[in-house]
Amino acid sequence: MNFSEKALKAHKDWKGKLEIKSRAKVENAEELSIAYTPGVAEPCLEIQKDTDLSYVYTRRSNLVAVITDGTAVLGLGDIGPEAGMPVMEGKCVLFKEFGDVDAFPICIDSKDTDEIVNTIKLISKSFGGINLEDISSPRCIEIEKRLKEECDIPIFHDDQHGTAIVTLAALINAMKIVKKQPEKVKVIISGAGSAGSAISKLLLDFGYKNIIVYDRKGALVRGVEYDNAVYKNIAEITNPNNESGSLAEILKNSDIFIGVSGPGIVTKEMIESMNKDAIVFAMSNPVPEIMPDLAFEGGARIVGTGRSDFPNQINNVLAFPGVFRGALDVRASDINNEMKIAAAIGLAEMIDESELKEDYIIPSPFNKDVCICVAKKVSEAAIKTNVARK
Amino acid sequence: MNFSEKALKAHKDWKGKLEIKSRAKVENAEELSIAYTPGVAEPCLEIQKDTDLSYVYTRRSNLVAVITDGTAVLGLGDIGPEAGMPVMEGKCVLFKEFGDVDAFPICIDSKDTDEIVNTIKLISKSFGGINLEDISSPRCIEIEKRLKEECDIPIFHDDQHGTAIVTLAALINAMKIVKKQPEKVKVIISGAGSAGSAISKLLLDFGYKNIIVYDRKGALVRGVEYDNAVYKNIAEITNPNNESGSLAEILKNSDIFIGVSGPGIVTKEMIESMNKDAIVFAMSNPVPEIMPDLAFEGGARIVGTGRSDFPNQINNVLAFPGVFRGALDVRASDINNEMKIAAAIGLAEMIDESELKEDYIIPSPFNKDVCICVAKKVSEAAIKTNVARK
Repeated sequence: MNFSEKALKAHKDWKGKLEIKSRAKVENAEELSIAYTPGVAEPCLEIQKDTDLSYVYTRRSNLVAVITDGTAVLGLGDIGPEAGMPVMEGKCVLFKEFGDVDAFPICIDSKDTDEIVNTIKLISKSFGGINLEDISSPRCIEIEKRLKEECDIPIFHDDQHGTAIVTLAALINAMKIVKKQPEKVKVIISGAGSAGSAISKLLLDFGYKNIIVYDRKGALVRGVEYDNAVYKNIAEITNPNNESGSLAEILKNSDIFIGVSGPGIVTKEMIESMNKDAIVFAMSNPVPEIMPDLAFEGGARIVGTGRSDFPNQINNVLAFPGVFRGALDVRASDINNEMKIAAAIGLAEMIDESELKEDYIIPSPFNKDVCICVAKKVSEAAIKTNVARK
Repeated sequence: MNFSEKALKAHKDWKGKLEIKSRAKVENAEELSIAYTPGVAEPCLEIQKDTDLSYVYTRRSNLVAVITDGTAVLGLGDIGPEAGMPVMEGKCVLFKEFGDVDAFPICIDSKDTDEIVNTIKLISKSFGGINLEDISSPRCIEIEKRLKEECDIPIFHDDQHGTAIVTLAALINAMKIVKKQPEKVKVIISGAGSAGSAISKLLLDFGYKNIIVYDRKGALVRGVEYDNAVYKNIAEITNPNNESGSLAEILKNSDIFIGVSGPGIVTKEMIESMNKDAIVFAMSNPVPEIMPDLAFEGGARIVGTGRSDFPNQINNVLAFPGVFRGALDVRASDINNEMKIAAAIGLAEMIDESELKEDYIIPSPFNKDVCICVAKKVSEAAIKTNVARK
């Protein structure tokens, strides 16, 4: 049986990767009368008096919805709500297994921003948080922005912020090795979609100054009229010297390459043109922007990818379980930038400086302490920024 | 600790009555690669080719959404989406414990029919069925009707049809004892809300002819202009002799009283005015339309209530787990009247005629065979009426 067949068989055998179990026993009339009528009226009436008690008497305190419209599922693109479900179930499995967060998958059968926002808003009071997933750019950014304004629970688009957090964590450790300062380096980000835009913003917030975001048409610069609102926004906040040119041109004398774009677009020669001690995160999946061996041949000192078969896997699962664990633990109303940066710092700190080396800048996702450490940092940042409600 | 305190403490200790667990293990890189990327792409692509495979590769085949708008929760009324959640979680517990159906609770923060219909429709492809719950009448009836038209999965408003099925089952057995024929008796239904309207329709479908539905303003009759669309519909299909009058007046010479209205509205004298071998189902909760002892004093032969502390508890939990179990087992596209009647017959048959007696017309909800028997009848009826898709 090849890998595809194995994956299909496993999914068939699971009959769904999630199961909803009861935490209450109802094996006799008395138990039934407590868990259901008439006993259940008591918590209802308490919550009616104070809706915050929904976090005490229902699962809301530990419950996240994983929501997609099926438009940007993995590398598969717009495959629709039914076909997106295996990925959403998988994401919920990771939430539970890595963060002990109960997560429920919902695929919305609409591509209309207003409809998606309204649907999520109308069901949001059943959840403690919303993890948006695999919604295509630039819609995903407006959807998240509006939901953050209209809902009082954390809204987090993992394709944006999960990726940005883990990338920043890996960079924090890589920069310790190469001994460079964020404010002094030149960073090239290839890909101006959800991940690229979020990474550029989080790096700016963290103290990086010279970031250039490159899309297939070239470096994003001020002075060009972009139809895409996300491009426009990126062009406004990045590229301080308004440098234009091809990827080969802008990579010259840069220190860091971050690829969230497509396979094989970076050559050995481009890496050779970068500054000494170049950091290359080629995260396109399954085929990176440049394969690690080629990047090293070009002189890169530290290379990360999105793949588990190379060292330094920059994998979202390192972030989102801990981010939501930390947000839920303090009943945060938001997941703000301070919390994201705290998550990245916590994740970076998982590797002691004595252990840090070129091929070990980021911990394994199977390290059980990762979620605990990230969650703690996120909770602390939530308290510090006054979004904790508990 | 009194009962209220005990119920509150239990809910606090549970921290939610449901939990979402993983059926897939992800303890190492290989398991992760099967349950999530890259393996998860395989079932996605298969479902993209044939959306019916969502029933094979995801939990959809066993998954029901329990959805309310919080407007008619238990006897508590319009308590809002957060406060309705303990009841919805409780319902989901019953689905799982009695029917092994995975059920997930969603409370919609809207009272607008269009918004509720649209929200449910847009998330419906994530589920194998929708159980509507505790939505106030007459909106619930339009919401259900429109969803049945617009979705291709079973839609079932339990307050209507669950109650109707269990009532019909109890009547089937009660009528065996009193040896009367459906087409020859006079039935008075007190309450023209969701339960009353569904009971009247199901009894008509089953063969009852003379049904009069009474609301607090009187018997529903043709010739009156009702604002309420449900009243109008009931008046058109029931009350063949167009009898009007007070409850006391219309109860005279009737055979069956079914109360789904309010406490204490029926007196001993009214029962005395009924025909011999009167059947009285006083299902208002927690206080029946007439207490059983008083009904017996008035000459009733068979009395049922909604309460667990009297014999003959007419309890929805006898129906909905088996109804959905049966519908899901054959991947039914609908829960139609034939399936509801089959469920009632199956439920009635749980009591052998040799065991049948005045205080034992309906089985205990803790009898594990109930769900199996109901499910089998429902599956068979689905196949017979061509709504089974498997």
